[in-house]
Amino acid sequence: MVESSKLADEKRLLDAPVDALTRLFYILGSPIAHVRAPVVWSTLMRRYGVNALMLPAEVSASNFDTVMKGLKLTENVDGAIFTMPHKVAAMNHADVLTERAQRVGSLNLLRRRADGAWEGDNVDGAGFLAGLRADGVSPDGANVYLHGCGGVGGCIGWTLAMEKIASLTVNDVDEHRARDLARSIAAVSNARVTTGSPSMGEIDIAINASPVGLNADDPLPFSVEALPPHATVADVIMEPSMTALLGSAHRRGLHVHHGRNMMNHAMPIAAAFFGLPASFDWNGEAL
Amino acid sequence: MVESSKLADEKRLLDAPVDALTRLFYILGSPIAHVRAPVVWSTLMRRYGVNALMLPAEVSASNFDTVMKGLKLTENVDGAIFTMPHKVAAMNHADVLTERAQRVGSLNLLRRRADGAWEGDNVDGAGFLAGLRADGVSPDGANVYLHGCGGVGGCIGWTLAMEKIASLTVNDVDEHRARDLARSIAAVSNARVTTGSPSMGEIDIAINASPVGLNADDPLPFSVEALPPHATVADVIMEPSMTALLGSAHRRGLHVHHGRNMMNHAMPIAAAFFGLPASFDWNGEAL
Repeated sequence: MVESSKLADEKRLLDAPVDALTRLFYILGSPIAHVRAPVVWSTLMRRYGVNALMLPAEVSASNFDTVMKGLKLTENVDGAIFTMPHKVAAMNHADVLTERAQRVGSLNLLRRRADGAWEGDNVDGAGFLAGLRADGVSPDGANVYLHGCGGVGGCIGWTLAMEKIASLTVNDVDEHRARDLARSIAAVSNARVTTGSPSMGEIDIAINASPVGLNADDPLPFSVEALPPHATVADVIMEPSMTALLGSAHRRGLHVHHGRNMMNHAMPIAAAFFGLPASFDWNGEAL
Repeated sequence: MVESSKLADEKRLLDAPVDALTRLFYILGSPIAHVRAPVVWSTLMRRYGVNALMLPAEVSASNFDTVMKGLKLTENVDGAIFTMPHKVAAMNHADVLTERAQRVGSLNLLRRRADGAWEGDNVDGAGFLAGLRADGVSPDGANVYLHGCGGVGGCIGWTLAMEKIASLTVNDVDEHRARDLARSIAAVSNARVTTGSPSMGEIDIAINASPVGLNADDPLPFSVEALPPHATVADVIMEPSMTALLGSAHRRGLHVHHGRNMMNHAMPIAAAFFGLPASFDWNGEAL
């Protein structure tokens, strides 16, 4: 107790970003140099008086398991966020999975529980759904088109399929991946689930969850021309904010839903999972 | 480049303690909750504009090797400091050793070199020596008594024995440890090296490098009564600053040399080893 209060005094005196009692969280990925999580999370932790940091960890796929073993054995490490290419490999490091993580088959979060077990979750889909609703778009009764069935796309597909949507059409350059996702979702969802290119005139919500659009000279992931005037076009790409897809939807007067919504709305969900103040909310900040 | 400068802007805006480009250093120990290194180093890094943090890592002896493997495979980890109980085990994780680390047989520093090799060093002794000299105490021609031949004691013994001292007497509750240290030092030093309790009337510098004095009800590690009036009594214990040993020396009017000197003077040496600004110097700060 004496030591701790001394440290607290030193920390206040120096405004040090870390002391001997700081709890550590990591975002693991490769490349990691572009991620916003360390700045965003560490700023919020400081703002909420939580003595913890979100640290970047540049880790290749081949070293991921070794690094994870070490982090889990470091007693002041409390959790991790996973980004490319670690979301599926992270499954091997969880002792317990949330139901949605189990369905999706990939993790973006891992936390040390009070009982010492490591619990995995995937809140990409929950963040996307919360973002949609906050943007005034309800999936209830909607016909949804999902383009891209990788980690993020699968998670969004699963999440929407558990809501009261009318139908879900999934599509991917890898037809097998689209068919696998559709088959497993169809087994538990009340929605009509199909694969391939839908009749776009009947789609209410069209989502790009593929990486197409990250590069300036990418083609459009799909055409928005046949969508009905009330349709929403969503993109999970955060940078650029106005992708070519969203630009073409905007020019047609369709409602556009930006990629940052997903991360902004996943933050408080992830914070609650980590046992941090659930009011962690990055939405509406100046960034 | 665009991404990096964006991140820099966000960081300035938010005064975030970390971003995606932050380089990581660790101090590994158990228990770790009392160490000052995270506050001290991280404050200096911030002050010198170095985008790096010194993080605490609470790691047990049995998990040390696994954690080290993971840290070395995390590409933005640049170095580590070792404290109890890891200083000897750390030797296994160095590809290259400085000459002094090789002699001493334990490490307190490990750094990732530009060529990718991990280099180990031990600057406890160099820090102690620099502190002594800064305090106006020259080891040249001195008869030195060293009480405690563990990690820190061994490093101090080796360092002083490479200077122009006249004699070194080493002592330890574990006689074998004292004899082993004396034998290996005697093989390369020009000083007269012996073990056991010396004739204290001939000692110029008496050093406690044992943990005796950490607890309030510890006995004195040795008696200062027979020391000559010009003698210096040094303690490596940092907390309490005025140990019972130093208190008894002070009452006799002897020159006392506090434990913090070693760490304060080891800092710029360690910073240079890590490739950080060599002016890192904690001496004279308000702490």
